[in-house]
Amino acid sequence: MAREEPLLAPRPSSDRSSIRNAEEEDALLTGERTHRHQQRSKWAFWKEIGLFAWALIATIAVIVLAVVYQHEASKNPESDSSWGPGGKPTGKRNLIFMVSDGMGPTSLTLTRNYRQYTEGLPIDNTLVLDQHIIGTSRTRSSSSLVTDSAAGATAFSCAHKSYNGAISVLPDHSPCGSVLEAAALAGYKTGLVVTTRITDATPACFASHVNMRQYEDRIAEQEIGEHPLGRVVDLIFGGGKCHFLPNTTEGSCRGDDRDLVEIAGEKGFHYLDSRKSFDSLNGGSEAKLPLLGLFADKDIPYEIDRRSQNEVYPSLEEMARTALKTLSQATADSDQGFFLMIEGSRIDHAGHGNDPAAQVHEVLAYDRAFAAVLEFLENDSTPGVVVSTSDHETGGLAAARQLHDDYPEYKWLPGVLANASHSSEYAEQVLNDYLSKQTSQSNQRAFAEELLKKALGVNDASADELDHLLKPHLPYRRAYVFADIISRRAQIGWSTHGHSAVDVNIYASSTRDAWRLVGNNENTDVGAFLADYLDVDIDAITKKLQSPKDWSWKPEVESSSTHNWMGDPLGEDIRTEGLDTYHGEFKRSLDSHLQGRDCGCGAQH
Amino acid sequence: MAREEPLLAPRPSSDRSSIRNAEEEDALLTGERTHRHQQRSKWAFWKEIGLFAWALIATIAVIVLAVVYQHEASKNPESDSSWGPGGKPTGKRNLIFMVSDGMGPTSLTLTRNYRQYTEGLPIDNTLVLDQHIIGTSRTRSSSSLVTDSAAGATAFSCAHKSYNGAISVLPDHSPCGSVLEAAALAGYKTGLVVTTRITDATPACFASHVNMRQYEDRIAEQEIGEHPLGRVVDLIFGGGKCHFLPNTTEGSCRGDDRDLVEIAGEKGFHYLDSRKSFDSLNGGSEAKLPLLGLFADKDIPYEIDRRSQNEVYPSLEEMARTALKTLSQATADSDQGFFLMIEGSRIDHAGHGNDPAAQVHEVLAYDRAFAAVLEFLENDSTPGVVVSTSDHETGGLAAARQLHDDYPEYKWLPGVLANASHSSEYAEQVLNDYLSKQTSQSNQRAFAEELLKKALGVNDASADELDHLLKPHLPYRRAYVFADIISRRAQIGWSTHGHSAVDVNIYASSTRDAWRLVGNNENTDVGAFLADYLDVDIDAITKKLQSPKDWSWKPEVESSSTHNWMGDPLGEDIRTEGLDTYHGEFKRSLDSHLQGRDCGCGAQH
Repeated sequence: MAREEPLLAPRPSSDRSSIRNAEEEDALLTGERTHRHQQRSKWAFWKEIGLFAWALIATIAVIVLAVVYQHEASKNPESDSSWGPGGKPTGKRNLIFMVSDGMGPTSLTLTRNYRQYTEGLPIDNTLVLDQHIIGTSRTRSSSSLVTDSAAGATAFSCAHKSYNGAISVLPDHSPCGSVLEAAALAGYKTGLVVTTRITDATPACFASHVNMRQYEDRIAEQEIGEHPLGRVVDLIFGGGKCHFLPNTTEGSCRGDDRDLVEIAGEKGFHYLDSRKSFDSLNGGSEAKLPLLGLFADKDIPYEIDRRSQNEVYPSLEEMARTALKTLSQATADSDQGFFLMIEGSRIDHAGHGNDPAAQVHEVLAYDRAFAAVLEFLENDSTPGVVVSTSDHETGGLAAARQLHDDYPEYKWLPGVLANASHSSEYAEQVLNDYLSKQTSQSNQRAFAEELLKKALGVNDASADELDHLLKPHLPYRRAYVFADIISRRAQIGWSTHGHSAVDVNIYASSTRDAWRLVGNNENTDVGAFLADYLDVDIDAITKKLQSPKDWSWKPEVESSSTHNWMGDPLGEDIRTEGLDTYHGEFKRSLDSHLQGRDCGCGAQH
Repeated sequence: MAREEPLLAPRPSSDRSSIRNAEEEDALLTGERTHRHQQRSKWAFWKEIGLFAWALIATIAVIVLAVVYQHEASKNPESDSSWGPGGKPTGKRNLIFMVSDGMGPTSLTLTRNYRQYTEGLPIDNTLVLDQHIIGTSRTRSSSSLVTDSAAGATAFSCAHKSYNGAISVLPDHSPCGSVLEAAALAGYKTGLVVTTRITDATPACFASHVNMRQYEDRIAEQEIGEHPLGRVVDLIFGGGKCHFLPNTTEGSCRGDDRDLVEIAGEKGFHYLDSRKSFDSLNGGSEAKLPLLGLFADKDIPYEIDRRSQNEVYPSLEEMARTALKTLSQATADSDQGFFLMIEGSRIDHAGHGNDPAAQVHEVLAYDRAFAAVLEFLENDSTPGVVVSTSDHETGGLAAARQLHDDYPEYKWLPGVLANASHSSEYAEQVLNDYLSKQTSQSNQRAFAEELLKKALGVNDASADELDHLLKPHLPYRRAYVFADIISRRAQIGWSTHGHSAVDVNIYASSTRDAWRLVGNNENTDVGAFLADYLDVDIDAITKKLQSPKDWSWKPEVESSSTHNWMGDPLGEDIRTEGLDTYHGEFKRSLDSHLQGRDCGCGAQH
């Protein structure tokens, strides 16, 4: 074996060296431990120490690097860890969940094309949402291939499939714990921001449990704290005031004379019912929780109409920013952050109404709210994530429409939508008001023609179209006729005034933040992500909800049925008078439920 | 400083130890180099060597770990590298690009729901494609918000937007180099596998350049090597034989009497024109390149019909597997791998025909082909990636359809599609054949009724439906009536027989393999990825194509125009007789081009 010498260390002589220096030889001969020998020993000592230190430090470095590398590898997308490169979240954190109700894939293309057209932007200019797509969500419910918003929101709130119409109850009509409830009990602050009634299906599923979504009076009661677990929502912004006012009051749509605004006040809620009171929050810096802000009797107007009533109604973006500021401030000194649900509720309504002009403005408003949330997350010192998805598509919207039997044109015309200054819903209201006062047919015709020009930018209405619009007994809303007049001219197609089954998109602040939702997911996976991100146990909440002994609240009416507080599962006391008619499907889904759910989904029953 | 002893090494005495053993003391006193002393020296030597080796190994380990860690970190999704965690590809590799022509987001939901229904699978059972979604693609062309397949495929082949109808030519009618051409010139083997005419827009864009997609005769000529750069395709499987046969032959759809099959043979192509000859390839192991396989005069039948003619036509999956084996074998000893384009061409046709039963079988066939490609990649020793996307959506398909004026039902009925054993195109052909022979109206009616039962599983055709079907002069294909009968019963909606603007999905073998395409992309980004993955320069090909002095081929007819070989940009010699009628939009898009492109996309012109 070849003689080995250290390669890098200084090369002192050694007692194994074949060449020794004179002093070493002397020492060996005299037996005296020479100064040199001492020096040599000292040198050898420090050499050994040096070598040892070097070895030790290098070894520690190896161990540290190996541990770090292993840790990083476990965060790698290719690893088993479902949390991905960001790892499982730890420490104080905020979660914003956004729901674009009824927004399908075509809504995005439509709105992007519209924006490019109206703002003169290049082909590759996109919405903010476009830059944040991370996956898609499969939406079918337990009772149908085509879900409604109740079953859709139950998948998000409880991470369970349920039947169309279910508000955070399971197919067996037992309540399931929601992520918002679990968050509240874990010490998070919570909020709900919507543009429709706060008692509508999506917000309802996060803070209440009823067997049929139309039990909106009960939903309102639970939302202000008449709830088995007490009050779980800290901040409420939206419409739907009518369910909080006693039926002795004008503008009420309650079935009883309970004054929920007063009751909410007794429970500590600060109540806001106007733009002025909203503005007094000063963007949230003056806000105190709990906060109940109801800014419309039913829906806040479509964005296309709200633009010209900005002094009456706050925008979705303004409500979102104020909610973020308020919740952030309220949790500044807490170990826990907040959970906020923000819904662009009326994208769905524009789909139900088949109104493409209203829809593009709803999607743009939602995109601005999403951008505001991103901005908040970027600037806030507490880490957080925003996940945005839809419960379903509405309308079977297509950015293409064949108008004649011969071969279709390959185009659609955003300019038609740009000419509309109002929604078909707005035009309907104006026309209905006029028709109720003016009976002269020629006056009616002239008014309708002028309205089409002024509100919808349509200058070429045909005689047939005007006839259709002015029919005394239409079997559907007059708004549908206005919307069809616009849709045909823009060459925009619709297949239904209801929902469709197509998968919807999922967006997030980054793929890293929401790694588990990258790709194609079941809608219940979204709900499971929300709960896991907050590290809360929704099953424990389900158990509490199902055990009245654990409740901090007693239903007013004692009943033999444990679940009576959620309303009759058979829906005998359904009330729909005076409400928006978009969701008349409940009666129908109830019928099909009773008839064995003829949903066409065969083996999955 | 505290005395340090090695922590891990054995602890022999040392000459610095304050406690010496007797023999060491003796040696010091007598001056004799005792055996012990030698042993001690020997020991110290080995100790030092050991320490040094330990230090050295640990140091090397630190360096290696640090380099590996740095390397991994640079591949991290959060890093700047657009190639993501997999890094920029290096070494020999294969690229398979799959095009699901006309498949929009709803096609996937429809087919997944159908498969769950027919096979009794659980709610969360998905298609193979579903498990591989990585993003979406924006599809608008340079001339319209709604693209056709030619502009769509030009975005993939050249990474440039162009006008509807363009076959790898730019808006100024100059040719743009395709990724397949660049791959061929870089030494890759290349292939095209389709289920429609190999001269149709999608395959055409990869291997030819013409100003109007209907110049299919010229496309065929270029595909077999009458091309400025010589032959660029090594393997062709599909339909469209009629463009290769002289017009003196039955079944030809050429405008001249050139026999391209013979010319291809002279250029070295092995020609296959039947299932039998396809089978003789033995899955590819007996195949020799170049290979020209034309298995149908025009289209290979829809999968729903092909199933019962399996002895006549190979499936998309079989063609894909055989192509993969052939190309893999041909490149086994090469430094370069292969580029293969596989198109599920007729998903688009089912959309144009508004035939949901045909569509679900086309998508299922495509899903199986995708799975076969994944299987190949998993088992092949050469690394590779498959990217799959659509050029556009067709039909404005919605998995929902409102049949009545009153509120729509929330469901669609896959069972109706399961009852159909054939496509509406097949039923049309059978009925047209019968009607051309039988003039008795009662016989015609009875035949149509029976055909609806047998081919489409419809047992309840109404008198109105039969009247419609048997009208002597329908302004559209009879197949459309059959398809509408099925669609209504299944509650499936369509908005057009043409294309729509919605973004389409992108799939890949993994997010790691195609990191750059994760998220929402312009369709041209897909083309750029293909070229960059193969590390080929399509701009260099564009320059070659635009410089006749660089050509390895001379056009038969010399012309003053450099670009005459691509056909007249004004389309004077358009021939559509005898072809499928799906793409009659060319004439129309030509008209709008000449009229200043009234595409409704305003500022983007």
